[in-house]
Amino acid sequence: MSKLARISIDGRPQWAGFHDGHLVSLDAQLPANADMATVAGFVAGKPDLSKAPRLDSATVRWLTPVERPGKVICLGLNYAAHAAEGGNAKPEYPAFFFRGATSLIAHEAPLVRPHVSNSLDFEAELAVVIGNRSRHLKPGNALSAVLGYACFNDGTLRDYQRRSTQWTIGKNFDGTGPFGPWLVPAADLPSGAKGLHIESRLNGQVMQSDNTSNMIVSVEDALVLLSEVLTLEPGDVIAMGTPSGVGYARKPPVWMQPGDRIEIEIEGVGLLANTVAQEA
Amino acid sequence: MSKLARISIDGRPQWAGFHDGHLVSLDAQLPANADMATVAGFVAGKPDLSKAPRLDSATVRWLTPVERPGKVICLGLNYAAHAAEGGNAKPEYPAFFFRGATSLIAHEAPLVRPHVSNSLDFEAELAVVIGNRSRHLKPGNALSAVLGYACFNDGTLRDYQRRSTQWTIGKNFDGTGPFGPWLVPAADLPSGAKGLHIESRLNGQVMQSDNTSNMIVSVEDALVLLSEVLTLEPGDVIAMGTPSGVGYARKPPVWMQPGDRIEIEIEGVGLLANTVAQEA
Repeated sequence: MSKLARISIDGRPQWAGFHDGHLVSLDAQLPANADMATVAGFVAGKPDLSKAPRLDSATVRWLTPVERPGKVICLGLNYAAHAAEGGNAKPEYPAFFFRGATSLIAHEAPLVRPHVSNSLDFEAELAVVIGNRSRHLKPGNALSAVLGYACFNDGTLRDYQRRSTQWTIGKNFDGTGPFGPWLVPAADLPSGAKGLHIESRLNGQVMQSDNTSNMIVSVEDALVLLSEVLTLEPGDVIAMGTPSGVGYARKPPVWMQPGDRIEIEIEGVGLLANTVAQEA
Repeated sequence: MSKLARISIDGRPQWAGFHDGHLVSLDAQLPANADMATVAGFVAGKPDLSKAPRLDSATVRWLTPVERPGKVICLGLNYAAHAAEGGNAKPEYPAFFFRGATSLIAHEAPLVRPHVSNSLDFEAELAVVIGNRSRHLKPGNALSAVLGYACFNDGTLRDYQRRSTQWTIGKNFDGTGPFGPWLVPAADLPSGAKGLHIESRLNGQVMQSDNTSNMIVSVEDALVLLSEVLTLEPGDVIAMGTPSGVGYARKPPVWMQPGDRIEIEIEGVGLLANTVAQEA
């Protein structure tokens, strides 16, 4: 199967897929509340979607492809040009930080600019979704832990990111982490999602444009490094860092404003789009 | 009620309380799988435990007081003497970072020293457990979000903490975050858990000894600062930072070794004890 989405129809969450380019319901094949280990098994079974009922994609609401990830682990400074644009040395070891599930939003949900800060920035990233509970993965087998890939926007309030030495709080505002629009199973992409064009566009203008092959730490490397430390669980998400071209490094800086349209597109994965809204 | 514990008897998780100094079963009053909002409601209802069946505390296994916190938010450098012992300035804004639920362990569970590092350190901390979903809390009402308090040991692999600018990975090894042994409802402690002696002991020797009134950012302040940014959800945990006396700041440094006994005791809250074990 090519894509797996969580959607809501009339307020009821369910799983959907794509067949012949059409959105189709998986409601009869995969329970709405299936955990991500079950979802991984479903995908591995190469389900036949030819008889799945078609849905009208215009009438569905997109949900994040994992309802509540146990962990969202982000890599900072994982493209050399992005490290350089912020005046940072190329890291010897990735700068890992976590986002909470409360910061995540779906494709087409409002991306929230909070009352307390105007320095809202975008970061186009490849998201890795874990399918198998894993510890001590080794190069060669590490990628077997991956269920699939999605687009991620590691939305950041830059002033809060720098209020202490630890970036976490600037990365955890409610409604600032777009994730989706769907999962693409690992088998449908190059190994480790290498060689994919990754781009962000703000109101149609290209802001970041790079290739996932330019990541300093590859998906396989990240899985090995992380699972040396902790257990990766089904539904955990790894956000693989962002290319150069973010707003804060521009002269003058570019901050997202209410009404702005921010798009993250990864070749073969999808297009994740959100419109900025001022906090109510 | 004075204390609320999650325990396991013959492999079956359940809630327990204390009455007249004895551990009693709450299994008939509170479902084992109750979410933390339900637990908060139960506590607020001041349940009568006088008829709850007694349990033999020697035969139970302790579980973490929240099964899987959605977020575990930690404050770094929240006691001035601890900031100074590490050569850090007193922070203007707290250094927040997150731990994942996979790092947490219960009272008396083995505290794991991993294969890859020997620099295992202890950090005695007050844990705040959220009972009410909250955003934009204000001074004066912020403490209403708190269900109760527990002891926390923010176990750290110091070399991994310093492998990049971001401390998160050194704070997230599996089995390094003791949390418990139980919750003490907020109503049974001074407002904001102020004025409580906090201490760690390694093999019986006092290593850290301070008072929660010496925290730079109080519980109320932390709730206000965090809820400015994100939604606090029932079961979220805030670990309030550690006093001076940690192992790395000693000359020579003191690292925990397999077989060591580490105890965190907070006045009126409890005694959280774990024995260090080498990773299997």
